[in-house]
Amino acid sequence: MDEFEFIKTCLAPLAGPEGLKLQDDAAVMTPLPGLDLILATDTMVEGVHFPNGHYGGDTAERLLRVNLSDLAAKTGRPVGYLLSIAWPKNVSAELMQGFASGLRDVQKAYDFRLYGGDTVSTSGPMVVTATLIGVVPEGQMVKRAEAQAGDDIWVTGSIGDACLGLKYVTGHDITPVPDGEALWLWEEAYLRPQPRLLIRKLLRKYASASIDVSDGLLADIGHITTASKLGCKIYTADVPLSAPTQKWLSGQGDSQKAIVELVTAGDDYEIVFTASPDHKEDIAREYKNLGVHVACIGQCMTGNDVTLLDPNNKSFYAEPAGYKHF
Amino acid sequence: MDEFEFIKTCLAPLAGPEGLKLQDDAAVMTPLPGLDLILATDTMVEGVHFPNGHYGGDTAERLLRVNLSDLAAKTGRPVGYLLSIAWPKNVSAELMQGFASGLRDVQKAYDFRLYGGDTVSTSGPMVVTATLIGVVPEGQMVKRAEAQAGDDIWVTGSIGDACLGLKYVTGHDITPVPDGEALWLWEEAYLRPQPRLLIRKLLRKYASASIDVSDGLLADIGHITTASKLGCKIYTADVPLSAPTQKWLSGQGDSQKAIVELVTAGDDYEIVFTASPDHKEDIAREYKNLGVHVACIGQCMTGNDVTLLDPNNKSFYAEPAGYKHF
Repeated sequence: MDEFEFIKTCLAPLAGPEGLKLQDDAAVMTPLPGLDLILATDTMVEGVHFPNGHYGGDTAERLLRVNLSDLAAKTGRPVGYLLSIAWPKNVSAELMQGFASGLRDVQKAYDFRLYGGDTVSTSGPMVVTATLIGVVPEGQMVKRAEAQAGDDIWVTGSIGDACLGLKYVTGHDITPVPDGEALWLWEEAYLRPQPRLLIRKLLRKYASASIDVSDGLLADIGHITTASKLGCKIYTADVPLSAPTQKWLSGQGDSQKAIVELVTAGDDYEIVFTASPDHKEDIAREYKNLGVHVACIGQCMTGNDVTLLDPNNKSFYAEPAGYKHF
Repeated sequence: MDEFEFIKTCLAPLAGPEGLKLQDDAAVMTPLPGLDLILATDTMVEGVHFPNGHYGGDTAERLLRVNLSDLAAKTGRPVGYLLSIAWPKNVSAELMQGFASGLRDVQKAYDFRLYGGDTVSTSGPMVVTATLIGVVPEGQMVKRAEAQAGDDIWVTGSIGDACLGLKYVTGHDITPVPDGEALWLWEEAYLRPQPRLLIRKLLRKYASASIDVSDGLLADIGHITTASKLGCKIYTADVPLSAPTQKWLSGQGDSQKAIVELVTAGDDYEIVFTASPDHKEDIAREYKNLGVHVACIGQCMTGNDVTLLDPNNKSFYAEPAGYKHF
């Protein structure tokens, strides 16, 4: 299938009216009054961000879900996206159709449309880029840089499942040997992260700063505290883990080393946010109506380290701001 | 230079306020009332869209200029862009800084800012994607699909210089041997196309359809006529050529074959548009105040071929709609 046929048969059905049937040089949209636009770009490279040869629906889904997660952290509602695909030579028509199906599934699940983009060939690994467009009431986007000393640190969902899912997808041994349900949960967490769009109103109401967990829980909390010129402490016993991941953790010889692995691994696509302790009860009450679990895991402080505390509130790991694990 | 350092030292100075110093997950913009947004994405791959190893300013300039050309065809004024770069391993800090300088030069020349993007590593060729955001008065974007039978076909600037520039840049022989001035003009036309933003008001006033010449003059006219369900005839003697390209043409044994090469080669980044013959005199009068030459080179007709006429108005070449040269 060549570029023109792919656009016409696979992508054009995904286009919204802004995309002009993907037959023009550009998309055009009429912004709604009172809404700001949020724009987030994500690029994934074969062999770096997804396994070699995974040209089909899984990669398309993950690209959009990761992009939606940025939007969720910034409290936006998705409306459309622009997509660039550099296809390697000789990708089968089935995989190309599969890629488009993955896009369609995510569009349907989160109600947004394709606006346009570009499709080219490459002699190297596949490279895909999506620029998602979301809307938010004017002036209400939650930023990274406005956390205050004393603010609580909250995180959605559970941490570490995607780390174990990546181990599984890439064929690494996992000990103790997990059951099928654990594998399924971990694999889903890695391949199909759930963008936490449901909590965007909660964030707009209470959050002083927010970010999604892509680089790793600690690194992303560090992005907030660095941008806000703060440090923080994290109670590791309060970091939310799924039952299978909790079971994995208890099977590890060195549980502190294992928890550090989970909170530094990344790909969770949960939302970390900070909020004044005055809102602690409001948040704990209100998240229950949203279908997303939210846990308080620490506090912002003056200083510039991200410090991990054990169940006895003893510090066992400190990471200076901006530390990189890769 | 790693990804974080490149963003901080090279890209952050290019960001507008919408980019939040490139320290957040997304950009945020407040659209101005009464203006539509135009969104255009272009991707360039090393070895396909630019020569191997050209990681510096030339590639950055060309990426943005090509992207601006789409915007010009759609009559938009640029305001910002999102940029994705997949860097090959071991690109020198000098080339990375050069790339950023190329971005800065184009931003300054056309007055728009970086809003955000993503920077990653690849084991393969460099892949760069820009999504340009422009504004246009609500409902006034000129589309591809609205040309009418009988409309004149107009083109800006000159055709074929970039084709000869690409030959020169890629080390192909050019006969007859051109002088230094010709080489400079051709190379500039290829490397630094001039997005024809100056004619956007003329287009909004008179054009029924427009497109920029990226695939080739004939192919892009074909995109308009196909989308508008028409054919057309082109008077090759009226296709505007620069003096050096005219000289090159007269030195070719088979001048019809040579003109077909020029009008099918692409990379001109001129604007082709259609307009009712009622506006012929208005256009011919008004373009003179704009600093852009505009020439009438043909007419839209019923049918579906793009037909080339020689100086005696005899047809010598016809290309069915959607024909691909590559």
